Amino acid sequence: MSVSLEDIRAAAAAIEGMVVRTPAVSAPRIAEALGAASVLLKLENQQYTGSFKDRGALNKLKSLTPAEAKAGVIAMSAGNHAQGVAFHAQRLGIPATIVMPKGTPFNKVERTRAYGARVVLEGDGIDAAAVFARDLAEREGLIFVHPYDDARIIAGQGTIGLELLEDRPDIDCVVVPIGGGGLIGGIATAIKALAPGIEIIGVEAALYPSMLNAVRGEKPASGGLTIAEGIAVKSPGALTRAIVEKLVPEILLASEAAIERAVQMLVEVQKLVAEGAGAAGLAALIDHPERFRGRKVAIVICGGNIDVRMLSQVLMRGLVRDGRVITLRIEISDTPGVLGTVARLIGESGGNIIEIHHQRLFYDLPVKFADVDAVIETRNAEHVREIVSKLDSGGFPCRLLGSRSIDAPQ
Amino acid sequence: MSVSLEDIRAAAAAIEGMVVRTPAVSAPRIAEALGAASVLLKLENQQYTGSFKDRGALNKLKSLTPAEAKAGVIAMSAGNHAQGVAFHAQRLGIPATIVMPKGTPFNKVERTRAYGARVVLEGDGIDAAAVFARDLAEREGLIFVHPYDDARIIAGQGTIGLELLEDRPDIDCVVVPIGGGGLIGGIATAIKALAPGIEIIGVEAALYPSMLNAVRGEKPASGGLTIAEGIAVKSPGALTRAIVEKLVPEILLASEAAIERAVQMLVEVQKLVAEGAGAAGLAALIDHPERFRGRKVAIVICGGNIDVRMLSQVLMRGLVRDGRVITLRIEISDTPGVLGTVARLIGESGGNIIEIHHQRLFYDLPVKFADVDAVIETRNAEHVREIVSKLDSGGFPCRLLGSRSIDAPQ
Repeated sequence: MSVSLEDIRAAAAAIEGMVVRTPAVSAPRIAEALGAASVLLKLENQQYTGSFKDRGALNKLKSLTPAEAKAGVIAMSAGNHAQGVAFHAQRLGIPATIVMPKGTPFNKVERTRAYGARVVLEGDGIDAAAVFARDLAEREGLIFVHPYDDARIIAGQGTIGLELLEDRPDIDCVVVPIGGGGLIGGIATAIKALAPGIEIIGVEAALYPSMLNAVRGEKPASGGLTIAEGIAVKSPGALTRAIVEKLVPEILLASEAAIERAVQMLVEVQKLVAEGAGAAGLAALIDHPERFRGRKVAIVICGGNIDVRMLSQVLMRGLVRDGRVITLRIEISDTPGVLGTVARLIGESGGNIIEIHHQRLFYDLPVKFADVDAVIETRNAEHVREIVSKLDSGGFPCRLLGSRSIDAPQ
Repeated sequence: MSVSLEDIRAAAAAIEGMVVRTPAVSAPRIAEALGAASVLLKLENQQYTGSFKDRGALNKLKSLTPAEAKAGVIAMSAGNHAQGVAFHAQRLGIPATIVMPKGTPFNKVERTRAYGARVVLEGDGIDAAAVFARDLAEREGLIFVHPYDDARIIAGQGTIGLELLEDRPDIDCVVVPIGGGGLIGGIATAIKALAPGIEIIGVEAALYPSMLNAVRGEKPASGGLTIAEGIAVKSPGALTRAIVEKLVPEILLASEAAIERAVQMLVEVQKLVAEGAGAAGLAALIDHPERFRGRKVAIVICGGNIDVRMLSQVLMRGLVRDGRVITLRIEISDTPGVLGTVARLIGESGGNIIEIHHQRLFYDLPVKFADVDAVIETRNAEHVREIVSKLDSGGFPCRLLGSRSIDAPQ
């Protein structure tokens, strides 16, 4: 059972008015920075639950028979699929059970509970939780809602393709993150049926190239910690794989560094919040700019559910990487007034001291000397060199901590 | 010289294709949280330079005679106006000088320079810089581009009103931040001409109620540090004041706490980055929800240029305020293994330790005791009580640092 344009049109009619009609915005500064002719961002982070999952989940739920709806649904997900299913089930009055692996972060459990779902924490990891969920579905007679390998789910996600063509048919290619493949399966089906000249390019996290392995017939080789947890999928769907094989000639891999950079760039340049998986499309442009030079590119920003502490860290790491926040370790004699002199020298050279740590224990220095670590806001790498030279000629030798990333910004 | 609907229509024609046609997105979760029937956000943070200022600046620049354009323009601004003028002047090949007060943050100076403007740092504060800029304009024969008290600027900002009505005429009111009044002046003129039933509501930062003071004939009473620096204006325009007196029956004040909360809410719930001034409209809903209950509200998110370190701080402060990150000061005996027990108890009660500080100097404790400060990620206030009680019954008295904000979240 495959998915047709008609299925996607039916999905669009079924979900209309119950999901957000997301905008596609121009990102001219990103286009300039990366050498594309234009960049269009389809903002699925603006959906009610913060990701495109609303579309497929709602389409699936609306397709249930009255008896099925009464029995209720079950899904296994620690992420966006859980929220999409829980929220729309609640709106439709369908009982929902969400199985999450043990150790799923609080905020994800809480948010899913807040949408009225019964949350069951079971299984040490995704695979065990999935087995448990299938079991529970059978025992309790619940309809299992697969996150991607389901024609209704794929058709729901495909409505993004219809909207893109409606709003901006003048694009050369669409870049779509791949986890299980539901999103790209739907979008590729819609766009290739209506505008076969538009190229569909898939993106996977370099640590989880599962779909690429599958279509190439390679041994699966996925694993590791990724910031793009939303697309960290070990086995793509069968339905979705068939669509990708037919309609998606190319899958690019995005490095962790580029994904982090993309999250930072979306916040700083485009004023948008994306989770790692949501920014993976932009990361592909960062890693492979030659592939998109001079082209009109649409990128699906598929989700915005990034943990706030994680986002905060990504932003601060970005400042460090760009040489806009540095840590200098400065050697001083341990006498009154010296700290004031150091602070003055830094101030005179235009550096803004954010934090200062003065520590005498454990350093390999004579007892009358001490090290000061100063965290300083700076303009750029050139400015850093000015500050270091000013301190040095003032009699305070110093060195940049973690300087590798300053000299070679990515 | 006032501003008419025709001026705004002319502005729309003049700037079409050279500014971003920004989307208006639905924010259903924000509407639910605040009790409005619906909330629509007009995303001026998606403009090229990150704020609505692009519109007025471009309209003004395009109105210059060839001789004026050749002579060049000058503006005084440490913020969004500077970037709007500099960027569009560069695109049009018009020389631009931007005067900024001494001490303007690096990143603002750099970004304005990156748009090709000559940046002159002069004057201890806005007023002195403005005097200097007027002087320099006269000396060098440059056209002064006022940030708000100029009919072309106001007409440019008014194009937002046209777009709002085009996209979503079914709104009851539009909430618009007021600094000098150019934004609300233009929007009110457009909307009141075309849809007089829609109410225009102004918002000022509570610390800078300059327009409110002016229209009420009160003594100006503005000042203080605000996160909404973009609308921290001491004297509103004369042109803009006349429009506000005629078309804006109500100006609400937004507290600093609500503005900070609004920035946080836009990131966490709506996945959007706004600067303080850009979030002020939402802050008005947070401070005055009764005013908007059951109504269809459009809010102009007028800018997104928030400093990344500031944003990061706002997000972390939000977690603390919501009781999702707490600091516990725990009293322990200073013997090996005790720290492990404490960490285990916290872990067993479901708290996630983010940082731990063990400090024996300076505390008012017997020498064989020590204090440990543990920064812990928690679910909510109830969860905090569970952790405290678990530690307490394990023999470790503890207290919440900065607990006021936990018990009484704003």
